Amino acid sequence: MADYKAPLRDLQFVFDEILNYEQHYEKLGFGDDASPDIVSAVMEEGAKFCENVLAPLNQSGDAGCTWDDGVVTTPEGFKAAYEQYVEGGWASMSHTADFGGQGLPESMGICLSEMCGSANWSWAMYPGLSHGATKTVKLHGTDEQREIYLYKLIEGSWTGTMCLTESHCGSDLGMLRTKAEPVDDGSYRITGTKIFISAGEHDIAENIIHIVLARLPDAPAGTKGISLFVVPKFIPNAEGAVGERNSLACGAIEHKMGLHGNATCVMNFDGATGYLIGPANRGLNCMFTFMNAARIGTAVQGLAHGELGYQKALAYAKDRLQGRKLSGADNPDGSADAIINHADVRRMLLTQKAFVEGARMLIYYLAQCVDIEAHGDDDNEMNEAGELLALLTPIAKAFITETGFESANLAMQCFGGHGYIKEWGVEQNVRDARIATLYEGTTGIQALDLLGRKVLLTQGESLKRFTKIIHKFCKAHAEDEALKEFIAPLAQLNKEWGDLTMHVGLAAMENPDEVSAASVDYLMFSGYVTFAYFWARAAQTALASDQSSEAFYQSKIKTARFYFQRVLPRTEGLVRTVKAGGKSIMSFELDEF
Amino acid sequence: MADYKAPLRDLQFVFDEILNYEQHYEKLGFGDDASPDIVSAVMEEGAKFCENVLAPLNQSGDAGCTWDDGVVTTPEGFKAAYEQYVEGGWASMSHTADFGGQGLPESMGICLSEMCGSANWSWAMYPGLSHGATKTVKLHGTDEQREIYLYKLIEGSWTGTMCLTESHCGSDLGMLRTKAEPVDDGSYRITGTKIFISAGEHDIAENIIHIVLARLPDAPAGTKGISLFVVPKFIPNAEGAVGERNSLACGAIEHKMGLHGNATCVMNFDGATGYLIGPANRGLNCMFTFMNAARIGTAVQGLAHGELGYQKALAYAKDRLQGRKLSGADNPDGSADAIINHADVRRMLLTQKAFVEGARMLIYYLAQCVDIEAHGDDDNEMNEAGELLALLTPIAKAFITETGFESANLAMQCFGGHGYIKEWGVEQNVRDARIATLYEGTTGIQALDLLGRKVLLTQGESLKRFTKIIHKFCKAHAEDEALKEFIAPLAQLNKEWGDLTMHVGLAAMENPDEVSAASVDYLMFSGYVTFAYFWARAAQTALASDQSSEAFYQSKIKTARFYFQRVLPRTEGLVRTVKAGGKSIMSFELDEF
Repeated sequence: MADYKAPLRDLQFVFDEILNYEQHYEKLGFGDDASPDIVSAVMEEGAKFCENVLAPLNQSGDAGCTWDDGVVTTPEGFKAAYEQYVEGGWASMSHTADFGGQGLPESMGICLSEMCGSANWSWAMYPGLSHGATKTVKLHGTDEQREIYLYKLIEGSWTGTMCLTESHCGSDLGMLRTKAEPVDDGSYRITGTKIFISAGEHDIAENIIHIVLARLPDAPAGTKGISLFVVPKFIPNAEGAVGERNSLACGAIEHKMGLHGNATCVMNFDGATGYLIGPANRGLNCMFTFMNAARIGTAVQGLAHGELGYQKALAYAKDRLQGRKLSGADNPDGSADAIINHADVRRMLLTQKAFVEGARMLIYYLAQCVDIEAHGDDDNEMNEAGELLALLTPIAKAFITETGFESANLAMQCFGGHGYIKEWGVEQNVRDARIATLYEGTTGIQALDLLGRKVLLTQGESLKRFTKIIHKFCKAHAEDEALKEFIAPLAQLNKEWGDLTMHVGLAAMENPDEVSAASVDYLMFSGYVTFAYFWARAAQTALASDQSSEAFYQSKIKTARFYFQRVLPRTEGLVRTVKAGGKSIMSFELDEF
Repeated sequence: MADYKAPLRDLQFVFDEILNYEQHYEKLGFGDDASPDIVSAVMEEGAKFCENVLAPLNQSGDAGCTWDDGVVTTPEGFKAAYEQYVEGGWASMSHTADFGGQGLPESMGICLSEMCGSANWSWAMYPGLSHGATKTVKLHGTDEQREIYLYKLIEGSWTGTMCLTESHCGSDLGMLRTKAEPVDDGSYRITGTKIFISAGEHDIAENIIHIVLARLPDAPAGTKGISLFVVPKFIPNAEGAVGERNSLACGAIEHKMGLHGNATCVMNFDGATGYLIGPANRGLNCMFTFMNAARIGTAVQGLAHGELGYQKALAYAKDRLQGRKLSGADNPDGSADAIINHADVRRMLLTQKAFVEGARMLIYYLAQCVDIEAHGDDDNEMNEAGELLALLTPIAKAFITETGFESANLAMQCFGGHGYIKEWGVEQNVRDARIATLYEGTTGIQALDLLGRKVLLTQGESLKRFTKIIHKFCKAHAEDEALKEFIAPLAQLNKEWGDLTMHVGLAAMENPDEVSAASVDYLMFSGYVTFAYFWARAAQTALASDQSSEAFYQSKIKTARFYFQRVLPRTEGLVRTVKAGGKSIMSFELDEF
């Protein structure tokens, strides 16, 4: 069974036909650098690298990293693959030219990360984790810091990490204890222990640049007393090369459910030399400036595991003979029918397909917003993009990772008992997918961010921006008979979204706990409606295509129909549970659990 | 953190207050052997064994079994625990006295298996797998076969397996190829390879009795040509002790997602000596006679992992400080509030609680049916019990394992990123739980059994038997104001169940694929309604108790309310998806996936 085939046809559909990336890039001044030909060529070359180099290392990488006295060895082949990645220029692809990047837009980087991540998420996290460090230095570093770190990070010869979590604080960073004490030379001594540091130590690059959250001696308590420090594994020397070893070490790597190929490190900073980056005590604010990117990155993980699972399950369902189609044998001369003939197996496959392809549309829609925010020249458009990103990122992160996990499980389910055996790789895909609803803010944290900060705090303004877009789409196609099956329910749900928000807002004025009680169901409702919008667009685009009778377009129309008929009704229960409120939840005394 | 505490208070509630086991046992003639005092004592002693002996081996057992040239070594401590289990008389507890059993009813055995399984499911499968072999010999063996095998199996010095699956056939046993050739002495030479044989080889008992499905030379093709054979690892000698080694061997053990402590074996039968059991070519029919028991056994697994996860998540949620309750600090002097104060964490905990305690009520309701089928003396009652079992077993198996997996995942989610680390045991619980929706018939197979065989094939008669019971309960409490919030929606859903069945039945007459297309959503709907019935009974019982103001009873009433308000609305989406039918699913051509 092939390990992974990059979904180039679907990417092309999303880029060219749904989202009109050609015009998008032109408008942002990428007309030459990211012309359709170049985009295609990059996707095809990226696909080859992912299919031929990364995918074959995915199952073998599940054997895991090893730790020996602070030295972490990655699975066989990971280092060589990373060298190929750097040599191929993939690391620097979507960074601006000023520090050695190749100047392609962020959205191309997201596309590459979808393919790398579907092929091998554990591996993809090594370069993936560099983004946060790179952005921190770029946005908040001094000119000197940029000079020292950016070229190396962007070319990929150094990687980066984000060191946030401590054992007693994850979601609640206000409690963090790592200390930073000033030294006469202007640097700081960083002391503390960080946990869950992905790619915190490894053997694939010559240096690792840690961005560490820590407290200055006089820092106020809570989140307003956190500063950012850049703490390199090896302190760069005057020539910018790797110099003295810093006093920090990987104390252990975690034994975890999945993603064994990526080292999750306990990092001990023992008076390590660090350099303040950005203003003192404003570390969390600096981080928020690129939190969206990290969360979209995790949304991509949901898509990646959904895609990989679907490819494996589809191949198996076409191949595996078991039982007979109820309406009559499909393969009467064979011993049994391929299980793809069974309606229930199809239901499972189509649920995966609807989630995966829906996720792809939403993610590259958001990727356009990321591009506009970074490269736009119209303040209004940039604001609009920023607002849409703020609203849709928690939806994308939580909904796509939740449905990605569901998809990975459905893929496994298609294999029956065989799916539980390591051989097929579908159980690994479930284990690897499971983390995505937890890190970078759990589903619950995303839901609170969405409903509390993004929706209610803006009095619903932020939501209205998006529901208006849906409303406009519905209105534009209201008279199209062929689209009625999509437009009518979408318009109704879009209205319901506003009503539901009003309902929760009123309840929350009485009791703030109602926000938390409603949050996850509200987010899931929002996700289903958002996907409905994109599936309606996909159907509209496919129906309008002059090749609409071809299998690819028929598939889009039918998948949209499946999504509306067989998935979207889940919203009904969610509306009811949100409206039921939190009383039944909050009424429990501690001893009644 | 304690590993596992047996939920004795809730078991007592279910046994004494919901299901009136005292009267049930008396009626079946167990008044003396299973008096309330004895039942309590057995539960308490069983709880101690599970808490003190089995639970401490659960996480260490995750290191797995080892295979060396056909010899399987179980994790450290498993063999000693099994010896204690046999010495304690637990193996023989719920077998009739005729072959050395202690004569307690089947339901007590199910209760023991809940506790053993919650403490350590991998371990519990070693004695658990003996049931199928024991029942086969008991129901279908000759007097001589019973004499030879039953005493040993029942006392536990030998264990048993069921060897059904081959690599090319699992759900579709009609395709199986293992051969049985007659030998002059009346025995058979069994040749073939079986896979996924749980406990197929191990070091915890002196002999292993395999029940093997195979074909006689002249057997008709398909399911009507399968016979059962008893194939011992060591052929018993004239004294009934372990004799000559049979020519069968464990070729490998599978590397799988979870349940590492239980060996899943490839069993090679190389002309092994076997003995026909039951009539030739009627092997599958013989097996169906106790298929319900095996499926209820797997339903118990869903309950077990749900319970274990809930216990761990609850303890963690009370202990872990992170963030502030939105309506005001709960622990203002501390650095943060315990996360159990957050409504969304409560929602996750209560969903687990509602599923776990709901499952417990359904399982012990079915256990009464099992008792009546085995020990009743009234044909009508025995038939009624049998019919209810036939209907409710696929619901219990699929719904409790699906919601058990959801519960295990929600428990992990309560831990945030820490849940992904092996240390806490909640990720193991997810991995261990995952198999339960696959083996003993996948959720899809259960759903087809329910909707196709049990409901539609009986023209809905079998379903009516149960909906009438619900109807009677609703009618009896229709005037009770305090119960209105439960009775009104339950009565409505009960009616909807019939309507939905009618709807699918009509659609299936047009096109049989509609059965498969509706099946899993129909089953899940059925599960939610069945749990609603039991939660309404729990609320009614708690409200009627003279201690109803106590925490335990308040908790029951509030959990019922939570279930009705925040879980049961999922049925709305399921009704809609079932009614949407299978056209959107079956319209896909193969190249459109």
